[in-house]
Amino acid sequence: AAALAAAPTRIPEDAVRTAITLRDRALHDDTAWNLTESLTTEIGPRLAGSDNDLRAREWAIAKFKALGFDKVYTEPVTFPKWVRRSEHAAIVAPFPQPLAVTALGYSPATPAGGLTGEVVLFPTLDALKAAGDAVRGKIVYVGFRMQPHRDGHDYGIGSTIRTHGPALAAKLGAAAFLLRSAGTDSNRTPHTGVTQWEADGPRIPAAALSAPDADLLERMAARGKPVQLKLDLDCGMDGTYTSANVIGEITGSKHPEQVVAIGGHLDSWDPGTGAIDDAAGVAIAMAAGHLIGELPKRPDRTIRVIAFANEEQGLWGGRAYAEAHAKDVARHQLGSESDFGAGKVWRMSASVKPEARDAIRQIADVLAPLGVAYDAQRPGGGGSDLSQMHAKGMAALSLTQDGTRYFDWHHTSNDTLDKIDRDELDQNVAVYAAFAYMAAQAKGDFGSAPGAFAHDGAED
Amino acid sequence: AAALAAAPTRIPEDAVRTAITLRDRALHDDTAWNLTESLTTEIGPRLAGSDNDLRAREWAIAKFKALGFDKVYTEPVTFPKWVRRSEHAAIVAPFPQPLAVTALGYSPATPAGGLTGEVVLFPTLDALKAAGDAVRGKIVYVGFRMQPHRDGHDYGIGSTIRTHGPALAAKLGAAAFLLRSAGTDSNRTPHTGVTQWEADGPRIPAAALSAPDADLLERMAARGKPVQLKLDLDCGMDGTYTSANVIGEITGSKHPEQVVAIGGHLDSWDPGTGAIDDAAGVAIAMAAGHLIGELPKRPDRTIRVIAFANEEQGLWGGRAYAEAHAKDVARHQLGSESDFGAGKVWRMSASVKPEARDAIRQIADVLAPLGVAYDAQRPGGGGSDLSQMHAKGMAALSLTQDGTRYFDWHHTSNDTLDKIDRDELDQNVAVYAAFAYMAAQAKGDFGSAPGAFAHDGAED
Ligand SMILES: [Zn+2]
Ligand SMILES: [Zn+2]
Ligand SMILES: [Zn+2]
Ligand SMILES: [Zn+2]
Repeated sequence: AAALAAAPTRIPEDAVRTAITLRDRALHDDTAWNLTESLTTEIGPRLAGSDNDLRAREWAIAKFKALGFDKVYTEPVTFPKWVRRSEHAAIVAPFPQPLAVTALGYSPATPAGGLTGEVVLFPTLDALKAAGDAVRGKIVYVGFRMQPHRDGHDYGIGSTIRTHGPALAAKLGAAAFLLRSAGTDSNRTPHTGVTQWEADGPRIPAAALSAPDADLLERMAARGKPVQLKLDLDCGMDGTYTSANVIGEITGSKHPEQVVAIGGHLDSWDPGTGAIDDAAGVAIAMAAGHLIGELPKRPDRTIRVIAFANEEQGLWGGRAYAEAHAKDVARHQLGSESDFGAGKVWRMSASVKPEARDAIRQIADVLAPLGVAYDAQRPGGGGSDLSQMHAKGMAALSLTQDGTRYFDWHHTSNDTLDKIDRDELDQNVAVYAAFAYMAAQAKGDFGSAPGAFAHDGAED
Repeated sequence: AAALAAAPTRIPEDAVRTAITLRDRALHDDTAWNLTESLTTEIGPRLAGSDNDLRAREWAIAKFKALGFDKVYTEPVTFPKWVRRSEHAAIVAPFPQPLAVTALGYSPATPAGGLTGEVVLFPTLDALKAAGDAVRGKIVYVGFRMQPHRDGHDYGIGSTIRTHGPALAAKLGAAAFLLRSAGTDSNRTPHTGVTQWEADGPRIPAAALSAPDADLLERMAARGKPVQLKLDLDCGMDGTYTSANVIGEITGSKHPEQVVAIGGHLDSWDPGTGAIDDAAGVAIAMAAGHLIGELPKRPDRTIRVIAFANEEQGLWGGRAYAEAHAKDVARHQLGSESDFGAGKVWRMSASVKPEARDAIRQIADVLAPLGVAYDAQRPGGGGSDLSQMHAKGMAALSLTQDGTRYFDWHHTSNDTLDKIDRDELDQNVAVYAAFAYMAAQAKGDFGSAPGAFAHDGAED
């Protein structure tokens, strides 16, 4: 028994050949494009808790069935509901000009009629931390500008300003908080996104300016006279809402209780149609599962495709799934979720037990012709929603996509279908179909167990 | 006398050398950038007839004085005033989605609460012409998509749809008119612009959809079911307004009554800050005049810089100037106006008398190192505003700028300072300063006379 337990995980040769066939078929298959087109056209903006939350779930259920998934079901996900009604901002003095602004998720409203105040500008969050009482009663602005990178790493800074800046400013007594959008474009399309409040901590209206409007504010301030800005946000919390993760399965023929988990998140922010974020991810996973389901024989293990609820406001669907399925973690063979747009996958990494590294290399060899490099040192996080199951001990991949342009459109009105290249989308389907099938056919597991990979350094 | 009249116009050698000095100085001079920054920051959106119409004129007067112009004055320009208050559109059925829309200039409002109707789609204006009664009571949509070109020639088609489509649809009994924005981008930033109505002809609400929204509408319609759209425009005509052309002059020392005319238009559309359209043109001309005024000696002829009023809604300032100055056409030595953004000048052409062609070649030789090609066959139109004086007989140049990206931002909220490259802007100043000075110093004229160049084929 001890000898068997230490046996390396391997993927049989016939499964490798089938995976190659799936990979190449995916490059010429229309399913993912059609799903992305369908979700962005027939549903469009689908903010968690909005009317389109339900329509999107109905859409996903219908698509799973039409695509031949054996089991289609939902698991409830409950969260606080936030609504956006209207948003306006303008410089009042010294030079009156309208501003393109968007409220952050979970921002409270300004008083009726708006809030006017003097703007105090900071280049970074650290500079704000040092501000002390200088911001009391003022409108805080943090102006850090993200640069585009393939891995989008400046989003670490931009999103931290967005998620932590408002609460910090509120504690310092500020009247409101603005940031230069956490984006890489120069369009009058501000980037929304959720912010975070401390439990029982103070909350102030919080919003993002588009990059050209941030530039304008900074140019006015550079003239040395106080800048007065008016902010008018009609938004806020509105009870709770119960949505659901929508799940489709291609049932395994040998070990149906063991699952390979893939997916994307079904919700989107509301200014755009959630094409790159994250119809693409949902479509990639659905198409990959569909292609596997079209094979003459069912895979050994179940392919479970999860369309997660409300990722945008705090991984609500991913956390609910992990809470519900923590006890099943050892039966989650391997998982990875797509939530970084539709750019090509350029790197794979994995968090698996050492005995499964050879099987990972087998997968890497199948993905290499697609331009995917294998980084054997780096951990695998599972993506945003499945990071939560990885944190419970599920073996995971990171299938890293090219995000050079992602943050031009992320969380803006510009998140529309035309931003997606179908060949790049199809490359993702090829990656997911091949890896998922190989994981489903593996002799042996990848090391999922309660508490496994606890300190692998993986991020979302 | 007859022999003298036929003498070729020539530019003295010392003037050519001075023009070269001006050219090279302009490439490193901050004036045009500072003016563009100032107009877009301290004034911003300046729709003809709005409060900023007056502020912009005050700005121009102050800048002319600060830049050392000898004479600064205004000439009134009166026109109908159009106002924009709010605009919304959405698909109602089969798949409800909001649309990014902007009303066209001179559009009437929809009834209070909006107008809902079935959309009838046409790929071109010619297809609409053939529609007959099929559009009665419907919302007409024309979906032609412009492609980017250095000379922006697709704007000929796009602007024709915008200016002629609504009146045509109105005559056919349509309820409203929409076009795919006359632009080359894929941003949720629709392109406004004026439309034209027949005197006493019917008028219907008219607006432009952003490119991604036009795509969405077309995808919905492609599914074969009727598309219902709601349009809600609060806008319309509101009496008349008297603005003014603002003029600054560097007075000539030998022939002060003879002028070299350069300029740009001071007004802008309201969604953006009018950076490329046309703060750049105003700045280029002001800076060129300023650099000439900084020379140790005044030029022989007057440099007249005109910041035109209300170009956007029908060349009102250019036409008023031409009406007022038609009698002076022979004293307009040469003219050209900048209204195509801030891209580099890549070609010069001219409409001048044959005896002045050698002088034009002298100018071309000075501009050649800047990358400006000389097309001796093509006419010169004078730009948009000065096209009207050219039509009265003023000799004119076309200083053609690179418009490859111009129609990404033209007439949208994206028309902001960050879209301008200062080196390219400075190249324009070099072109204008050099040509204007050489024209001012020429021995002889360029052929301006009442009725001259009547059939040269020049366009705006
Ligand atoms: Zn996402
Ligand atoms: Zn997102
Ligand atoms: Zn213009
Ligand atoms: Zn214009």
